[in-house]
Amino acid sequence: MTTLFIAPGACSLASHIAVRELGLPVQIEKVALRTPDSPIHAINPLGRVPALQLDDGTVLTENSAILPFLADQAPGTSLFAPAGSAERALVQGWLGYLSAEIHTASFRPLNRPERYSADEAAHAGIRAQAREQLLKAFEHIERHLEGRQWLVGERFTLADIYLGVFATWLTRLGAPFDGLTNIARLRQQWLERPAVQEALKAEGLLQG
Amino acid sequence: MTTLFIAPGACSLASHIAVRELGLPVQIEKVALRTPDSPIHAINPLGRVPALQLDDGTVLTENSAILPFLADQAPGTSLFAPAGSAERALVQGWLGYLSAEIHTASFRPLNRPERYSADEAAHAGIRAQAREQLLKAFEHIERHLEGRQWLVGERFTLADIYLGVFATWLTRLGAPFDGLTNIARLRQQWLERPAVQEALKAEGLLQG
Repeated sequence: MTTLFIAPGACSLASHIAVRELGLPVQIEKVALRTPDSPIHAINPLGRVPALQLDDGTVLTENSAILPFLADQAPGTSLFAPAGSAERALVQGWLGYLSAEIHTASFRPLNRPERYSADEAAHAGIRAQAREQLLKAFEHIERHLEGRQWLVGERFTLADIYLGVFATWLTRLGAPFDGLTNIARLRQQWLERPAVQEALKAEGLLQG
Repeated sequence: MTTLFIAPGACSLASHIAVRELGLPVQIEKVALRTPDSPIHAINPLGRVPALQLDDGTVLTENSAILPFLADQAPGTSLFAPAGSAERALVQGWLGYLSAEIHTASFRPLNRPERYSADEAAHAGIRAQAREQLLKAFEHIERHLEGRQWLVGERFTLADIYLGVFATWLTRLGAPFDGLTNIARLRQQWLERPAVQEALKAEGLLQG
């Protein structure tokens, strides 16, 4: 049985949604993070989610690799595009941008300034700068979405699944992030998808 | 004509090497970075490299998307693996790790602490923490390479092309990074490849 290891509300939500969008026979396993006895350490030496364990024991990591792998288990899915096509590379490019610029370069210093300086006195300054960086990184997406419903090819793809997760994190931050109306609109459409609602409910993030 | 925009010595070196390894008819165009009048701003609104402009004007960004796209122009290449295979996802996972954890989370705060705090007094602490983070992120790779020649599948792949670039950046840093002997060995094998030497020479990074 292929198993996807997730932590409720973490970025693994993207891979979780993809499993449900694609209707794949993948077991979803919730694990704790940042506890030394979490079962995730036996699966992924980095102790992180998402991690996808295949039947033969191979473990895949990184949303930017797991999302394409999952989509490729359903050849022809509209969530992705054929190998070698520019459209596929555009989707993959957004996965890379969201992972590197939105999650790693922006949300991480905002939420975990201790990873950027051991000096506690520096943390407020790191958080302030991270908010600016986050806004700049999202404004690039906001401009791209001007006149577009979805990130690539006028249809819902893996890139939108992943963006929806970070757009949801954004809703906690208030102004000036609530001025990113194209992103808020995309998130609303994301939220209306049955697979997204199922995944949110399964992670305890949505009542009903 | 497909054109790859690079800056000498930047992370775009990975995509440059892939073009030469694959023997693709792609023009290599050097641009300046961080100057307002650089031609890159007309190609990539983020002003960054690598950027791959296709014949129809479409622009691809992010090494983690350009490298797979280039390999898919040479179906069956040993640098990558077929869509849907675990091996392809393992290669893509390393591309994601190298982009997010090595480049963005570690080298960036080390080289550009001003992006992490506007307070100059905080920069020394950010650099010190970034060195620790860089070591930790590379140690994960070092352990993975124990008993392995290359990152995935016992052969040279896109993941090794990309790692070689960051392993080269590492050589400037001295101790304790010079203790990562598996990574140094991989870099040495990388350096001996004709396509790598051609790319380094073309970027003015290697005499000869």
